[in-house]
Amino acid sequence: MSNMEKLILITNDDSVNAKGIHSLVKMASKLGRVVVVAPDKPQSGMGHAITLADPIRLNRVGMFGDVEAYASSGTPVDCVKLAIYEVLERKPDLVLSGINHGENSSTNVLYSGTMSAAIEGAMEGLPSIGLSLSNYDSDADFMQYESYIERLIAAALSNSFPKHTCLNVNIPNVEASHIKGIKVCTQAHAFWEDRFDKREDQFGRPYYWLTGKFGEVNPREDSDLHALNSGFISIVPTQFDLTNYSVLNDFISWDL
Amino acid sequence: MSNMEKLILITNDDSVNAKGIHSLVKMASKLGRVVVVAPDKPQSGMGHAITLADPIRLNRVGMFGDVEAYASSGTPVDCVKLAIYEVLERKPDLVLSGINHGENSSTNVLYSGTMSAAIEGAMEGLPSIGLSLSNYDSDADFMQYESYIERLIAAALSNSFPKHTCLNVNIPNVEASHIKGIKVCTQAHAFWEDRFDKREDQFGRPYYWLTGKFGEVNPREDSDLHALNSGFISIVPTQFDLTNYSVLNDFISWDL
Repeated sequence: MSNMEKLILITNDDSVNAKGIHSLVKMASKLGRVVVVAPDKPQSGMGHAITLADPIRLNRVGMFGDVEAYASSGTPVDCVKLAIYEVLERKPDLVLSGINHGENSSTNVLYSGTMSAAIEGAMEGLPSIGLSLSNYDSDADFMQYESYIERLIAAALSNSFPKHTCLNVNIPNVEASHIKGIKVCTQAHAFWEDRFDKREDQFGRPYYWLTGKFGEVNPREDSDLHALNSGFISIVPTQFDLTNYSVLNDFISWDL
Repeated sequence: MSNMEKLILITNDDSVNAKGIHSLVKMASKLGRVVVVAPDKPQSGMGHAITLADPIRLNRVGMFGDVEAYASSGTPVDCVKLAIYEVLERKPDLVLSGINHGENSSTNVLYSGTMSAAIEGAMEGLPSIGLSLSNYDSDADFMQYESYIERLIAAALSNSFPKHTCLNVNIPNVEASHIKGIKVCTQAHAFWEDRFDKREDQFGRPYYWLTGKFGEVNPREDSDLHALNSGFISIVPTQFDLTNYSVLNDFISWDL
């Protein structure tokens, strides 16, 4: 078995102390040898940040029991780089990021630290999956979705994985027994309809709280939001070329 | 003229104190009424972060002379949202972000605060441009590129701008007299070839510095990196749907 054993790197953006990563380690450990390299503090909303101006710390930690694990002062993307170039003896067979406490569907992929780690894995040419649960509770029950996530990890390890692509997986906030299945989707064309709540502090000076509602602009039946709202787990094949090829000629006609 | 006057919102990620935004305000003020809403401190590498857990401050500042300007404690994306929903009396005709002290070509677009502000503008359905100079010097000479940037802003204000798309503009670090022109490009397929420099602190504990070299994997003549290396200003039409449509069927065949 040892020659065949799959090497699975796990990271996240909620830190080594989050319940979501501990649940994911338990699930993935049945399918290969897991090594954890994850942030030592929450890094939600860090987007694709990397640490350039500061040194990065990396310390072995014991909170995952028998599983080899390291906590880093870096961002989720730093953790993937450190794992590949400093920790692991070979490139991993799979990079998993999560399970995030909160949804990363639709355009939220752009500012998700969870998905940035998965995208970094894809940039390195590795099969990578970011996983999120539409539940922000620090004590959410992730293990109830084990059969779905195990099936997905097993499929990722046994099928050929398209190069320079990762998966954005979101689980709706419904009981596992009500999940209708897993759907391959497109990224919803949705936005925050932002508003600000303007208040005054104790000195009469204004401050603002961001508020708003997430809504789909052009609702599509194949979108991740539609799947989640219908009780499905959504998976969106995600790449990192933002070029809008369809309008190149519009700008060429500007004749700059 | 007043009815026809264009309203131009300017932000950045290097803060209201950076030379790059002051140069951009000077250039844009010739083409419309400029309002500045920008971070009160540097926010480089913030990616598409937004501030949800903290209140955001917004204060009128005077360092832009006659130009109406506000400094915010929020991220570049927060600044765009605040400007649209709290500061401006109507939607701006153009959102400009920059000029960034440093290059944001190729995959760097993913962790650029400058480009995130432009992408946020595009999400709001507004014509938006992020501008960066391949020079990290805080005292770089931005004004020498004025004729190119003015031509670009004028074109953006007079042509129809494709919806939900922004421009990622990068200026190579060569003297303006050596610029060969402006080229519409695709995002280069390039990556950091990362390595870490492992050192020891004064207590013998290890720390890591990220180092590495940026290289194009599949060099293409139409890429932004190729244009910059050839002395052209690159402009890449940029959108925010990361779905890899070409591999949807690969994953559907996994039969999850």
